[in-house]
Formats: sequence, structure tokens, C-alpha cells
Amino acid sequence: MQFHLNGFRAGDPAVHEPAGAPARSESLPEEVDVLIVGCGPAGLTLAAQLAHFPEITTRIVERKDGPLRLGQADGIACRTMEMFEAFGFSERVLKEAYWVNETVFWKPDETDRRTIARSGRVQDTEDGLSEFPHVILNQARVHDFYLDVMRNSPTRLEPNYSRRLVDLKIDAEELEESEARSGDYPVTVKLERTDGDHEGETETVRARYVIGCDGARSAVRKFLGRSMRGDSANQAWGVMDVLAVTDFPDIRLKAVVHSANEGNLLVIPREGGYLVRLYIELDKLKEGERLARESVTSEQLVAAAQRILHPYTLDVKEIAWWSVYEIGQRLCSRFDDVPEEEAGERPPRVFIAGDACHTHSPKAGQGMNVSMGDAFNLGWKLASVIRGRCKPEILSTYTAERQTVAQELIDFDREFARMFSAPPRAEGDSTEDSVDPKEFQAYFVKQGRFTAGTAVQYYPSPISAEPTHQALAGGLTVGKRFHSAPVIRLADAKPVHLGHTVKADGRWRVFAFSGRENPADPSSSIQRLCRFLEESPESPVRRYTPEGADVDSVIDVRAVFQQGHRELALREMPAFLLPRKGRYGLTDYEKMFCPDLKGGDDVFEMRGIDRERGCLVVVRPDGYVAHVLPLDAHEELAAFFAGFMLE
Amino acid sequence: MQFHLNGFRAGDPAVHEPAGAPARSESLPEEVDVLIVGCGPAGLTLAAQLAHFPEITTRIVERKDGPLRLGQADGIACRTMEMFEAFGFSERVLKEAYWVNETVFWKPDETDRRTIARSGRVQDTEDGLSEFPHVILNQARVHDFYLDVMRNSPTRLEPNYSRRLVDLKIDAEELEESEARSGDYPVTVKLERTDGDHEGETETVRARYVIGCDGARSAVRKFLGRSMRGDSANQAWGVMDVLAVTDFPDIRLKAVVHSANEGNLLVIPREGGYLVRLYIELDKLKEGERLARESVTSEQLVAAAQRILHPYTLDVKEIAWWSVYEIGQRLCSRFDDVPEEEAGERPPRVFIAGDACHTHSPKAGQGMNVSMGDAFNLGWKLASVIRGRCKPEILSTYTAERQTVAQELIDFDREFARMFSAPPRAEGDSTEDSVDPKEFQAYFVKQGRFTAGTAVQYYPSPISAEPTHQALAGGLTVGKRFHSAPVIRLADAKPVHLGHTVKADGRWRVFAFSGRENPADPSSSIQRLCRFLEESPESPVRRYTPEGADVDSVIDVRAVFQQGHRELALREMPAFLLPRKGRYGLTDYEKMFCPDLKGGDDVFEMRGIDRERGCLVVVRPDGYVAHVLPLDAHEELAAFFAGFMLE
Ligand SMILES: Cc1cc2nc3c(=O)[nH]c(=O)nc-3n(C[C@H](O)[C@H](O)[C@H](O)COP(=O)(O)OP(=O)(O)OC[C@H]3O[C@@H](n4cnc5c(N)ncnc54)[C@H](O)[C@@H]3O)c2cc1C
Ligand SMILES: Cc1cc2nc3c(=O)[nH]c(=O)nc-3n(C[C@H](O)[C@H](O)[C@H](O)COP(=O)(O)OP(=O)(O)OC[C@H]3O[C@@H](n4cnc5c(N)ncnc54)[C@H](O)[C@@H]3O)c2cc1C
Repeated sequence: MQFHLNGFRAGDPAVHEPAGAPARSESLPEEVDVLIVGCGPAGLTLAAQLAHFPEITTRIVERKDGPLRLGQADGIACRTMEMFEAFGFSERVLKEAYWVNETVFWKPDETDRRTIARSGRVQDTEDGLSEFPHVILNQARVHDFYLDVMRNSPTRLEPNYSRRLVDLKIDAEELEESEARSGDYPVTVKLERTDGDHEGETETVRARYVIGCDGARSAVRKFLGRSMRGDSANQAWGVMDVLAVTDFPDIRLKAVVHSANEGNLLVIPREGGYLVRLYIELDKLKEGERLARESVTSEQLVAAAQRILHPYTLDVKEIAWWSVYEIGQRLCSRFDDVPEEEAGERPPRVFIAGDACHTHSPKAGQGMNVSMGDAFNLGWKLASVIRGRCKPEILSTYTAERQTVAQELIDFDREFARMFSAPPRAEGDSTEDSVDPKEFQAYFVKQGRFTAGTAVQYYPSPISAEPTHQALAGGLTVGKRFHSAPVIRLADAKPVHLGHTVKADGRWRVFAFSGRENPADPSSSIQRLCRFLEESPESPVRRYTPEGADVDSVIDVRAVFQQGHRELALREMPAFLLPRKGRYGLTDYEKMFCPDLKGGDDVFEMRGIDRERGCLVVVRPDGYVAHVLPLDAHEELAAFFAGFMLE
Repeated sequence: MQFHLNGFRAGDPAVHEPAGAPARSESLPEEVDVLIVGCGPAGLTLAAQLAHFPEITTRIVERKDGPLRLGQADGIACRTMEMFEAFGFSERVLKEAYWVNETVFWKPDETDRRTIARSGRVQDTEDGLSEFPHVILNQARVHDFYLDVMRNSPTRLEPNYSRRLVDLKIDAEELEESEARSGDYPVTVKLERTDGDHEGETETVRARYVIGCDGARSAVRKFLGRSMRGDSANQAWGVMDVLAVTDFPDIRLKAVVHSANEGNLLVIPREGGYLVRLYIELDKLKEGERLARESVTSEQLVAAAQRILHPYTLDVKEIAWWSVYEIGQRLCSRFDDVPEEEAGERPPRVFIAGDACHTHSPKAGQGMNVSMGDAFNLGWKLASVIRGRCKPEILSTYTAERQTVAQELIDFDREFARMFSAPPRAEGDSTEDSVDPKEFQAYFVKQGRFTAGTAVQYYPSPISAEPTHQALAGGLTVGKRFHSAPVIRLADAKPVHLGHTVKADGRWRVFAFSGRENPADPSSSIQRLCRFLEESPESPVRRYTPEGADVDSVIDVRAVFQQGHRELALREMPAFLLPRKGRYGLTDYEKMFCPDLKGGDDVFEMRGIDRERGCLVVVRPDGYVAHVLPLDAHEELAAFFAGFMLE
């Protein structure tokens, strides 16, 4: 955490100095830059991101009368934890959440198929996949953490509750003219108040951008005339958060339980050491016991769980929350208002994110994670365009990138489910349905990456380059999230995670991994790069950093050397890497890093960086690798940024 | 973190359910169990500890009109971080603080003694000394974290500001009778209000116990008629927290700078990446430049720092705080109201803690740490006595334990300072003043442990046994703090720190390290121990746990096995280690641990536990090892607790 740059401020450094009038929770302005509809994980991620920028007027409205208290999703993937780190609250989640360390499988006991027996136990997350574990926490707490980020942001953003979106119109005329005028508000939204005194009152808000984060029954989606495609039949799950006494030994492990005749159960231990979530796939229950979705009771769900767990007992003492969660794997073809046939012709003005454009069965715990991923993808793009930093065209990459991700995830899940149920193929066997166990195992690992969220990869576009120089950094795949690694900070010898320098602040990062050369040598590539960045009129840092702003406020350049941190003399490193910032021109000492040779973690080794040549790794504000380049590819670096940035 | 035991509760689990009427900040009750005077680190540590117990009426008063905002101490030792973990806020400090990883030494440059050159660089904290680093953070933030703990506690304790203690009397008569009556309030305190409307008003409060945490000029100490002994002359330090631009390369490392003729400077980098604290020992300044303590200005301090750092420049942009901190190494002979000659005859009623009874030069950064250590030592004792769990005699151990610690620390510091200035002894040399460099180096390591707070050792007393069986756990020294180690929790495979099960909740812990035997075997020592604890009328768990309370509410028994966590079947372990708790009788799954064999950290290896025999390690509520015993020493275990516990 860096603070006190512009003078000492007492109190909690996570609470930013307020800028401008705070967003009031009672009333809405007539015009806003961004209107977010829905306070779910998608909406709150987006709001937390935009709240960071005082020059953007953002509001978030929600139909319900206050924050979520319990229930809904609870799985938090590794990649989501990385994103929480960027928002500054990963440590709170780590502390409070249940950690999914291992998963166990239970099958009918072959000696007595009326009972179950443990058939497998696996590590939940592949070693080295992320510096964060896969965790489980009440969705409401995730909301709380975002609300804190918003509350502590310069804009002091608070949601406007008890507002239901009832109409949305895009003014076609204004849209056409809008490129020319910066003050355009082409989207008009009508909100109906649902709170006591104001019940039924309607508010009209004109917005430059509207984002429908309004869940599976999205009104915004309907007004865009889009529809969801996919599984025609919904899967129905009985889900309960319970406090129970049981002699089932794996109640504190994620457990997949297949009974012979009573159906399947998924056990998800929860935060706090006592609470447990149970998922019961309703369609898999025994014919006679199949529950009618509409009339199912919690008693029936408990009874089903008890039958599945037999011979173990389950004595439910309290049901904190329960629901029948009915959902199919569905997907929208586009996540914005631009019709297919006009795609690329004009930048979108209305977006949908999260459950509003894709839904998933809770089996792989994706709903909440993918929804937040959408919003994190969109947030910085919106902010950059509104702040005049990037061309509006980059907004089209949102649907391109995220629709593909959702599609791949759904395809993958379907394939995995098929393989899961298919009989294992024996030697010489050629039955079409059967599956080679080796292939299955490889798929299983890949599945782990999918559910961890680390498999997400964006395809080439103006903001994600062709992986021409990928070989220079084998472990930092272009299009995938920047995979962090431990390093030592040069100036203060602190062990830190390189990836944790990527904060949710809308900035680009360029990591310069130096070659085997001596970085103190003025002719070294790293010194030449720094001179280019500091002095050349072509330098993207010079071109895109506004007059008077800190040198790293748009593109934040950091260097990683191969030498141990005690081998290098700070003052012999390029001055560009000790930038002077803020109103006092103080020196920022946090731009240079070295491998953690003592701890045995060499980032060059871990991420497959070319030791001879080093490389440049360009990282987007959402933490995705946008480009890998040779250290001396100054022109290509400049050209890349020129593709979407505005001077 | 464990929560939801007595039912699901929405919201932040760190916020406890309130119990009783909250402590109001405007007015004080006429009678309280405990009155704490002074909101410094000592007072707040004590208040945070006592706030945990709703059955104890605690109030804390402070002369100033609100919380500290900046300045004063900033060094947080490793042991203090361990204590913060027990209070539940170590992660907040870790995130915000500067980490002292290395210390550098600067001396006059031998080629030009008017300039300085780096002469050494050392790791700040010995490897493996603690799972926490040595950190630096504004004292005010430490106060904030404690205030949060108090605010979130069941009692919702808030300080009563703007109250100055002006009188304290102990009623001798009541004192004599008091043992017989539980409702006694022998201490009467007069407080003068210093806030606007109430200025000059006096409040009288009668208390069962009063603790003077009122700093170096303690009024409580004066009313006890005690005085501080030690250095006759105060050392004076000029101290400033500055935002500055400098080319001194080690400005982000702790740096000890000795100039040839301009005096000495201590550089302490601070939180946030920009702020730096500078200490200038005023007596060490060049004769002509020596500053008069009374009239010293911040400009003079800056000028002195600039001269010491020559040839490096120091351009101070903002002085966030500065002071002349004038202090000697002084100590009180006793830390309570019982006169020397009556020691042991009656339990004390008034205590002093922190700077009120010992002061230290800021060189070793001890003031704040030792003060909090005092309060942590006293807190659980007070709570146990007031709650009727322990004999009042244990209150006498406070002065015995903490006065000794303070004395040792002061002696050590003096000796170290002497060695530091003494000339290194050459081969065959026998000058009396000179010091063997080897001896010095050993002393240096020991010094590191002293300043880290991990060298503190309490001597045998009713609550700290003779180390007769120390050999069973060579790395867990009786009388020293329980040195944590990583383990895997059996039920959920979570990697955790064993020592972090020790929370600031007033409970005793018994760690049963099992021998090489199979713990599933009913005849194993661990099973026999559990049967004894569960069934025997001699069992301390049975004797001291109140009717109806959770089995672990007084003595919390946990087991550590030698087997890997996948080798053991949870349900074959003693039922005593899966205790049923709370209003629902839910199972607590967090009592059993295994070595982290995969991570390569075997707690048995790391802490020198006898693999054949295992052992019992009894840990006090403040985290100190009270006893090491053979696993089957049931009687000795019972006898130990019988020495000070009440049924
Ligand atoms: C009742 C329920 C139970 C669920 N149970 C599970 C589960 O057991 N396991 C699991 O993995 N996932 C579950 N989910 C799914 C998971 O919560 C979602 O995948 C995730 O929350 C998606 O986030 P989102 O932000 O896209 O949408 P949501 O979380 O659905 O948030 C949408 C928000 O928009 C608001 N909104 C909707 N329409 C309007 C409107 N017209 N005007 C204003 N506001 C509006 C809604 O009130 C809601 O707060 C459940 C979801 C729901 C709704
Ligand atoms: C001005 C100042 C500067 C310091 N600078 C440094 C430094 O640079 N480096 C360093 O290592 N340490 C420094 N210290 C010391 C360090 O802060 C202490 O060692 C540490 O705070 C001790 O904690 P404590 O709780 O025992 O006492 P304190 O922190 O001194 O707390 C005592 C509290 O009691 C209150 N109080 C006093 N008398 C009364 C009364 N009669 N009635 C009610 N309340 C009363 C005081 O206002 C104060 O808040 C400084 C201390 C002070 C006071």
C-alpha cells in the first residue's frame, strides 16, 4: 500500500480523500455518466471499479431495499481472489472464508450399495496455479467488501436501493451525433421506487452508459431485445445452508456424494467452521421421491440429504437459508446493444453483465465468479473511454472477450459432464461413448483451471496482441491473466508478489524483465528502454500521460532484474525507475524488483522468462497479459498503445 | 475464525453480539470492576482484552479529548505481531505497515571522513524467529485497531475521553474485609473532566481494580508512592516524521548512520512508501551544534540530519510530526500497590503498566512493545480472578513477571551499548574494556531476540512450572511464548499456524503432541489422555469448566499427530477431540492437526518434540508456555491447574 504521497493523512489509508460531493443514497441525479442496474456481484464489482474515478459520475440502483444478507452463491475461484487483491480486500476474504483444500468423492459401497464409501480424495487446486486458494464465503460478505471499497473511495459511492428499472430507451438520433459531443446522454432509463413513502414514484435518469447487471431475469436484456439460448430444460437444485450434527467424516471437506438410488449430494463446507451448504440435484432423486420444484419443502430436502448420506446420520439443527435454485446453462449471443450486423460500426452504449447474459449450474461454482469477471473486464474500458484516455472502439471488445469466455466455459462444462458419466475405455476398446482415462485425467486438470478462472484467455484484438514473442515469457501467456510470482523489492528488501502491484486503478502496467546484462550499464537494454520511455516523443508514457499527472498514472513501468537484491546499487539503476511524484515530487521506491533467491523462488525460472534477452510484459488494467515483447521493441510497444490510446 | 456456533448471524463475524448495555462514552458508572487510566498502547491492550468479557464492567479513561492521530512510537516487534494475531488484527498491520527486513550501517568513509559510507547490511530478524516480521507503523493506527476490537466486542467498550485522574485512594479497611465479599470496591478514584461544557467537573468512581496505564508521568504511580529508578540523566532525541527527497540510497531501509563529527542518525522508513522517521541523538551532536533541548526547532533538527547525511542531500518537504523525546532508562521496583514487605500477603488492587513503570530509549524500539506486553500479561489474570476462575494470588505474578522482564531488558540494553562502543579485542589482548568479536556476535543475535520480544521468559511460579520435562519439547521453552509452527488441520486439510489457535480470549490451551503410536489405538497415550480429561473427576477440564459451558471454554485441548493428515481417519480419533458445543451441540472440527509433510514443515522437527513419547504443552491465555509434561502425566497436569484454579 502506498499513501501519504501528497502529505501525511491521519487515519485509515484505505479511506481515500473525498473528491466532490458524495453520491447520495436518497436521490438520483438527472444525468449520470454510468448507471449500473443491480447490486449483485457483477454490479458491485463494476461500481467499485468506477467509484475509484472522481471525474466519472456513477450510480448503482437496486430493486431490493438494502444489501444482501445471506444465501445465493458462495464459491470464490482463485482468479477471483486475485481480483479481490487488486481491489484491496483479499486478506479479509482469506481470513473469513472456508478454504477448499481437498475434494473427496463418495460412491455406493460395493459391499453394500445401500451405503456409501469414500472412493477418492484429490487436492482441489493444482500446485502453483495461483498464490491464492479456492475459497467459499457467503455472497453477502463479498457484497459487503465491495460496498466498503465504494464507501472508502474518493466518490463515496453508495447504492440507490428500492429502485426498479422499468424502462430503457436509446435515442438513435443522439447516438449518431454523440461521437461529436462529449456531453451526450443517449440512454434514458425509468426507475420505479419501491420504498414505503415513495412507492410507485418514477425517476428518469439520462446516462451516457447503462450496464444491466440485473441477473438472470434481466430487464435491461429484455429492453435490448436479446434472449438467452442454451439448455431448454432448467436443472433444479435444492440448496440449504445448515448447522447440523453428523457422523459423516468428510463434512468439512468439499464432498461429491453419489448414492446408488437416492440421488446425489454436493457438500460445501462454509466459513466459520460449523455451517455447511448442501446441494441436492433434484432431477437425480429416486423416481418416487422426485420433488415437485414448485412445492418442495426444506423438510423434503433434509430427508433427501439424509437418504443420500446413509448410513451416516444428519441431524439438521438450523437452516440458515434454503432455496430451489433452478437454472440452465444459457447464454446471450451479444453482451451489448449493438446489433450483430452493426458490430464494430459504432461503440456500444448499453451492456449486460453476469447472470443477465449467461447462467451456469452451481456445480462448478461459476455464476458469481464469471459475473465479477465480466464487470472487471468492462470497468476499466468504460473508465478509460469516459476519461478520454482510450478510443470508444475498445468497448466492443467487452462482448467479444466475455461472450467467448462464457461460451467456452459452457462448452467445457458440457463436455466434462459427458466424460464424467461415460464409461472408462478399456485397452483396445472402440466403443464410441467410452472415454480414455488418460484423456479424462488431462481434462480433469484443465477443468480445475477452468473453475479456478485461470484458463480464461482473450483473443487478439487492439488491446490484446498476437503472441508473436510468447517464447520470451513462456509462463505469462498473452491473453491470460498475469500470473503473479514472489519477488523481493529492491529498495526495501520486502518480499512481495509481483502481480499485486496490479491494482484495480485503471492503469496499464509494463513489466520490464531485464536480460542477463548488468542493469547499471548505461548501454544495457533496460537502460535504453528507460531512456526511450523517458525521453522519446514516441514513448507511450510521454504521449498518454496528461500534463502534470504522475509519470505512472497511465502506464506504470516496473523492472525485474535477475541479480539478487543485495547485488544491485539502487542509485545506479535508471532514474526513470525512481520516479518523482505528487505535489512534493517525492521518490517512488517501489518500481524495481529482484528474484527471491534466498526463498528459492526465481521469477525468471517460474515464469519461463528468457534469461538472455529478458522481455517486456504489458499488462492490462484488469490484470491480463496484453503483450510480450523483446526489451528493445520500443517501436512495437509504442505501436501497440497507439492502437487504442488517445493523446 | 469460528462463528455461527449458536446460529447463523449475518454480517461481519468480527462484530460480536452485544451483551448487556454498551459502555457509554459520555458518562461513567459509580462502580466498576476495572478502571483503566490512560489510552496508550498499555491501556488499550488491557481494555481490548477485558472488553471480551461481558460479565466484567470495564472502563477506560483518558485525559486527552480523543484518539491519538500521529506521532510517538512506531516499532512493532515480532512478538507483538503474534499478540495482534491473538487479538485478530495482525493482517491489518501486515498490510499497512513498513516491514523491517534488513538493517544497514553507515560509518565515516575512511577515504574522506567528512562523508559517510555503508559499512554493513544485515537481515533484521533471525530466520524462523517468528512467523511474523518486525514492522513499523504509526502508534495511532495500533490504537485504532484496538479501538475497533473494543467496539466490536460484546461489551462495545468505548473510552471515556477528557478525564484526568486527580486522586486515587485505597480503602485499607475494605481491603481487609474484601476477600470475604465479592462486591467490594476498595479503590476510589477522582476524575476531573477537561471537556468544554464539563470543564472542572469531578467524577468519583469506585473500582475493584485500577490500572494506571498513564505513561511516564503516571499519576497512579505517584498515588502509590512509587518512583522510577535508573539513568539519572535523560537522553534526548530529536524525532521527526518527514516526507523528503533524498539521494541517500538506503532511505527505505532501517539505517544506523554514524558520522565522524556531526552526530548520529537513525533512519526508520515508515508505512505507505514515502514517510520516514529520523531520530537524532541530541547529545551526540558536535559540541558547537548541540541543541538546547528546550528551545530546539524542527529546522535545527533538519539541519542536523542534513549534516550527518553529507554528502547525501535531504530536502524535507513536510514534517508530519516532530518532537524532542527525552527519556532515560528507568524502572519502578514494583508494579502494584502491595508494599515490598507485604508482598505475597494480599493480592494487589492497583497496578501500573507500560511507561508508568518503565521507560526505554527509543533506540531499541521497546517502549510501546513492552507496555503492551505488560497489559497482555495482566489482562487475563484480572479477568480470571474477577470471573472467579482463578485465585486472586495470581495477580501477584504480574509484578514478579513483568518487573523482571523490564529489568532484564534494561540491563541487556546497557550491556549491549557498552559492547557496541568498546574496541574489538585482538588475539592475545587482555585490555579490560575490549570485547571479543565472537562474544559480541552472539550477543548481537540475542539482542535481536530481545528486541523481537521473543526472549521474554517468565520464571517458575504457580502459573509457570519448573521445566522438569523440557527435554520433551526442546523448542517450546517453559516460560517463553509458545513458538508457533505451520500444521495441517485434520478435518479440512487447511494449512494453519498452530499458535494462531491461541486467541486473546482468556482460555488456557493444552497441546497434546502424540507419540509415534497410532492415535486410533484405544490404548494409545493420546486416547488415554482424552479419557482422563473427559471422564476422570480429577480432570482439570471437568473440574474448572462451569456447568453448561462449552467443554473448551476454560481449557482448550488440541492434539497434534505425527501422521500425515490423509493417513488418519477422523472418526477413529478420540471423541473428546470432536467436542459438541453451543446451543445446538454442534461439532467443533478444529481440535486436531498434523504435520505439513508436503510443505516440508514438520512441527515435531521444528519444535524438537520427542517423537517416541510425544508430550503435553500447557499454554497460558497470554500465549506463554506454562508447562511441558509427558503425555501420561495426568496427575501432574491436574496438580498444576489445582495450584491456581478455582472450581
Ligand atoms: C435466489 C438466488 C439463489 C441463488 N443460488 C445460488 C446457488 O445456490 N449457487 C450458486 O452458485 N449460485 C446461486 N445463485 C446465482 C448467483 O448468485 C449468481 O450467479 C450471481 O449472483 C450472479 O451475479 P449477478 O450480479 O450477475 O446477478 P445477481 O446476483 O442476480 O444480481 C442481480 C441484481 O439485480 C437486481 N435487479 C434485478 N432486476 C432489477 C431491476 N429491474 N431493477 C433493479 N434491480 C434489479 C436484483 O435484485 C439483484 O440484486 C443464486 C441466485 C439467486 C438470485
Ligand atoms: C510525546 C511522546 C513522544 C514519544 N515519542 C516516541 C518515539 O519517538 N519513539 C518511541 O519509541 N517511543 C516514543 N514515545 C513512547 C511511546 O509512545 C511509549 O513508550 C508508549 O506509548 C507507552 O505506552 P503507555 O500506554 O505505557 O503510555 P502512553 O502511550 O504514554 O499513554 C499514557 C496515556 O495516559 C494518558 N494520561 C496520562 N496521565 C493521565 C491522567 N492523569 N489521567 C488520565 N489520562 C492520563 C495520556 O494522555 C496517554 O494517552 C513517546 C511518547 C510520548 C508521550
